Amino acid sequence: MTPLACAHPDATVPRTFEVEPRSTTPLADEAMSEAARSSPHASSILRSLTDEVGPRLAGSQADKAAVAWALRTMRDLGLASVHPEPVVVPHWERGAESGAIISPFSQRLALTALGGSIGTPGLEAEVVEVDSLLALERRRKTEIAGKIVFIPTKVRPLRDGSDYGRAVMNRSNGAAAAAKLGAVGYLVESVGSDHTRLPHTGSMHPAEIPAAALAVPDAELLHRILATGKTVRLQVSLGAHALPDAESANVIGEVRGGDLSNELVLLAAHLDSWDLGTGALDDGAGCAIVLEAARLLASVGRQPRRTVRVTLFANEEHGLSGSHAYAKAHGDEVERHVLGIEADMGAGSVYRARVLGGPGARPTFMALVNHLRPLGITPSFDDAHGGADLGDLRSLGMPVLDLSQDATSYFDHHHSANDTLDKVDPSALEQAALAFALAAWAAADDNATFGRIPDPKRVPN
Amino acid sequence: MTPLACAHPDATVPRTFEVEPRSTTPLADEAMSEAARSSPHASSILRSLTDEVGPRLAGSQADKAAVAWALRTMRDLGLASVHPEPVVVPHWERGAESGAIISPFSQRLALTALGGSIGTPGLEAEVVEVDSLLALERRRKTEIAGKIVFIPTKVRPLRDGSDYGRAVMNRSNGAAAAAKLGAVGYLVESVGSDHTRLPHTGSMHPAEIPAAALAVPDAELLHRILATGKTVRLQVSLGAHALPDAESANVIGEVRGGDLSNELVLLAAHLDSWDLGTGALDDGAGCAIVLEAARLLASVGRQPRRTVRVTLFANEEHGLSGSHAYAKAHGDEVERHVLGIEADMGAGSVYRARVLGGPGARPTFMALVNHLRPLGITPSFDDAHGGADLGDLRSLGMPVLDLSQDATSYFDHHHSANDTLDKVDPSALEQAALAFALAAWAAADDNATFGRIPDPKRVPN
Repeated sequence: MTPLACAHPDATVPRTFEVEPRSTTPLADEAMSEAARSSPHASSILRSLTDEVGPRLAGSQADKAAVAWALRTMRDLGLASVHPEPVVVPHWERGAESGAIISPFSQRLALTALGGSIGTPGLEAEVVEVDSLLALERRRKTEIAGKIVFIPTKVRPLRDGSDYGRAVMNRSNGAAAAAKLGAVGYLVESVGSDHTRLPHTGSMHPAEIPAAALAVPDAELLHRILATGKTVRLQVSLGAHALPDAESANVIGEVRGGDLSNELVLLAAHLDSWDLGTGALDDGAGCAIVLEAARLLASVGRQPRRTVRVTLFANEEHGLSGSHAYAKAHGDEVERHVLGIEADMGAGSVYRARVLGGPGARPTFMALVNHLRPLGITPSFDDAHGGADLGDLRSLGMPVLDLSQDATSYFDHHHSANDTLDKVDPSALEQAALAFALAAWAAADDNATFGRIPDPKRVPN
Repeated sequence: MTPLACAHPDATVPRTFEVEPRSTTPLADEAMSEAARSSPHASSILRSLTDEVGPRLAGSQADKAAVAWALRTMRDLGLASVHPEPVVVPHWERGAESGAIISPFSQRLALTALGGSIGTPGLEAEVVEVDSLLALERRRKTEIAGKIVFIPTKVRPLRDGSDYGRAVMNRSNGAAAAAKLGAVGYLVESVGSDHTRLPHTGSMHPAEIPAAALAVPDAELLHRILATGKTVRLQVSLGAHALPDAESANVIGEVRGGDLSNELVLLAAHLDSWDLGTGALDDGAGCAIVLEAARLLASVGRQPRRTVRVTLFANEEHGLSGSHAYAKAHGDEVERHVLGIEADMGAGSVYRARVLGGPGARPTFMALVNHLRPLGITPSFDDAHGGADLGDLRSLGMPVLDLSQDATSYFDHHHSANDTLDKVDPSALEQAALAFALAAWAAADDNATFGRIPDPKRVPN
């Protein structure tokens, strides 16, 4: 037990502390590492989800199949208290879609509707390119009205995926901003770091005009033709349409704790995916990581002190319905959640850990990180973010731990038809699952606190 | 002048020879290198073709637009004797297409018809996987009849692209072999070295059953599900259909020679492309290389002794109509063609030269290679192949020179929607264009012979 074990949320940070693992924990680490080495399961869990369920957009039939898959898989893994918690989700379908440059030259365009976009049977209009969302907001109505607005969007492939947050604003907010100026349609260059003719979809704020993403090569083609100064007209057809809301579920299972079983370490991922790929990276990998982590925890052969709860959230992609429902259902017991760890950044290996908690969190974190060092994971002193599905609980003060996965190639495939199993390196995925298991055990088999986030509303989403 | 300058086609190879460039040629090399350095044009030629014409499948409206583009571009570049030579080409259209696994799970499949395939409004059948074409030919009718045959096909990414020839047999011959055994459909894994959900089309021998290529990730999915031992049923719809033959043209232009202007060095590429991408690599790059080479030749400021003829062949992809027509029209003057050089392996830089000619060819070749060494190009003592569009002329004895381009990533994009301008490294393309120019000048500004291929019928196609 570390000297920090009994620290109260508001306790002062001790000036000195040990960071050695608990004496019993190395045995647990060894057991989990051995189980991960001798019979790794994360890849086969992921194969099962992506091959047998496939794309699972919120509200679709496959979404229901995914819930059934998750319940079955958790029970097969021997988790306790396996159950669904109902979530109402939007139901939107893509339908057939096509696009083309019709003058000054004829070129087909690879495009796909942004999530929630309205459809159009065949919009035809001149296109106007605007450098950025900021530049769009400065344009006059007379320059935009009646036209299709196009914003090129480059995203850099970075290990921490941090350029996405900047670039994605063009996808999220562009259509609404364009509609405000009288645009009749909106096209954004895919928020993708690839050069593949597969567009990347994603969520956006509701808008009254059809909105779609162009594949990167197609956006570059459009940009080149516009750069000649010629008037460019496009044709866009989107079969996108909304259906009545549907029922889905958060799927929950637990590795029950011992003397502190009322305290929860939450492992989170999301079960839904966009419809274009099979959601192998986003977020089948996360599901496989937290499910395999739970299996590894069970391989220790004794209970951790706290309970580890695995939650596979419904509908992260199209409005975070699942995490909102969870926070609503469990908000009054948020204090029981001593730490949340989310896996939603693909299938890369974990290279870094970060924490965000109360003043007492850092020494507890440093002790925890020692369990991860054998996997090449090092601590960062930046604050953790937590992830989208932990946003509501974090806002209620729940501390979060980031186990940052290498996302260098993640945005090559994310939200596109290319998000399929073949993009996953099994050894990286298994490393990530073991990292989640080691971190969860370290956080659960102890009474050390991460405190509470003192001013959670100030943490950016 | 080298001692070989006057060698007759059937002359004995001298035992000793000089391999230094002609005394005047270094000045020409310098002029072309300087023109390539100061104002390289290959990329802008390629941009013009791919942006303004785009996909240009034989027989389509865009195919006619490509012929007009080529005539216009050759005239703009100042080539002599610019003219079209009519070619009758097949006219086939892809139409809408889709595929899916319908049991034991539901999964959309990314597939595309092979060139010339018949259509099907909605074939539904069980699929049977066969390892290879050879294995298929050994199967019994009872095992195949009524089913869709699927052959997985891996192609290794190699610098010389040489694995394609092996792998492509499954695409070319699979449907006919499957039909012979009573199959109702044929699916081949794309002959592509990528992992992108964009299938690769390509030509095949006519068959009475619909035939399509699966994208690599989709072929792997199908393979995994079949490997579980479950019965797998597919649904395939292909809108493919043949139309009446159409008119196209080989487009020819020349850099006129001087005292030996009746002798021709032929620079070849093909103007048509498959319909899925914009044919940037296949073979827009080849067109840009030989057109830019012609421009560089003109920059020398004086005529070479022989004429350099640029021919952009019609319809290489779907039956070699253009090269057959050229051989028919010019077969009786094949002796005038002292050397053929074809560019049809993408946009990579040239790393190697090879020759195939008469017994006297090798010393002439070694002298020629010296002009290429400054570009990092080295000679190979393997025989040249020449390329598909030079096949007929080679069969008539015309010597061929290979300027082998780095094809490591070529089959990632080849024949797929991903064959677009963004895949081209401009500096590699410009290097290739200069290499073609240097080789063409060396071959043209001399009277050294490459002989005639002594036993041309024995050269494999």
